[in-house]
Amino acid sequence: MRLPQYIRVLNTLYGESLEVVSSQQLGEMLQVTPAQIRKDLSYFGRFGKQGRGYSIKNLLAGLRQIVGLDRHWNVALVGLGRLGRAILSYPGLVPEGFEIVAAFDSNHEIIGQTVGNLKVQTVGELDETVTALDITIGIVAVPTQHAQVVTDQLVRCGVRAILNYAPIPLQAPEGVKIRSVDPVLSLQTMTYYLVNCSSPS
Amino acid sequence: MRLPQYIRVLNTLYGESLEVVSSQQLGEMLQVTPAQIRKDLSYFGRFGKQGRGYSIKNLLAGLRQIVGLDRHWNVALVGLGRLGRAILSYPGLVPEGFEIVAAFDSNHEIIGQTVGNLKVQTVGELDETVTALDITIGIVAVPTQHAQVVTDQLVRCGVRAILNYAPIPLQAPEGVKIRSVDPVLSLQTMTYYLVNCSSPS
Repeated sequence: MRLPQYIRVLNTLYGESLEVVSSQQLGEMLQVTPAQIRKDLSYFGRFGKQGRGYSIKNLLAGLRQIVGLDRHWNVALVGLGRLGRAILSYPGLVPEGFEIVAAFDSNHEIIGQTVGNLKVQTVGELDETVTALDITIGIVAVPTQHAQVVTDQLVRCGVRAILNYAPIPLQAPEGVKIRSVDPVLSLQTMTYYLVNCSSPS
Repeated sequence: MRLPQYIRVLNTLYGESLEVVSSQQLGEMLQVTPAQIRKDLSYFGRFGKQGRGYSIKNLLAGLRQIVGLDRHWNVALVGLGRLGRAILSYPGLVPEGFEIVAAFDSNHEIIGQTVGNLKVQTVGELDETVTALDITIGIVAVPTQHAQVVTDQLVRCGVRAILNYAPIPLQAPEGVKIRSVDPVLSLQTMTYYLVNCSSPS
């Protein structure tokens, strides 16, 4: 799924007031071949004309629609510890159409506090709030040992996409998408290269 | 690069005091075919015997060595805002051999503070500290507009692997590995599926 990367690159080009981009240029920016770019984009629709390149504006609008970025997504955040608070103040979510509209915790010292503009609710209120606010995405930022339970609760409430910050793989029924934000996996991928692909220093 | 996932799954099995695992079982846990498992593992060495499955202990030790997890990795953290502080307290790093041994910021209100067990240093001290502590990995947790500059500084100091928390793609010379922890990309991948692959609710 390279579409989000396309959108990011096109946003940059659009911000530089450019109008047309070639598959060659896109390929360089995304580190894939121009042929792969043409293949990717023809799969999603008729965006370019032979020899003329792609209209940045049209391509961006088309891809944003395909990825669902022309919509507004209400998000529930579960876990308001240090990590949850960092996520709540993350500036990149809102411009892309994601809004954290509800926050939950099980710690009685945190419940009732106002964090950001949100009053932290008990996990028991999850069901009612998810329905009332039409929440489709959940962010799990609870300690490892609670992550699966919270995921199960979110799924029962109708949440269909979960961004997991706990360092364990989560199970969910078919139709529910889970992505993990997993720094340790990323670090391990890099140490593999440090050990196996570098010249000795 | 599925090796880190293998290690995670094998750690779980090892913790359950199991001794042998089949490619079938590994395939189910990792959601790939048994044939793919056998192919992956034969690429990295002779771990199993036909029809007998894999010794969990030997496989784990072998893969940990290949990924470099039998080593200790010193890590520098740049950016001690809310996100940086959350990263510093992340419990998953240390058991996997990653230790944040130095912390840097450019904000004079933060420099000199003790966070965790670390005294926050100025970015000007980066070069000296990276050399003195044999740091090979950097974590970038600074605001977007400073991320590339910090990355360039880390690379100049000899850091060869960077974990990027800023929501922009970073440039680095060949031989330097960058991985981004990017919640927005993950969310966008999921909204694509919500828009295109779900039945209407």
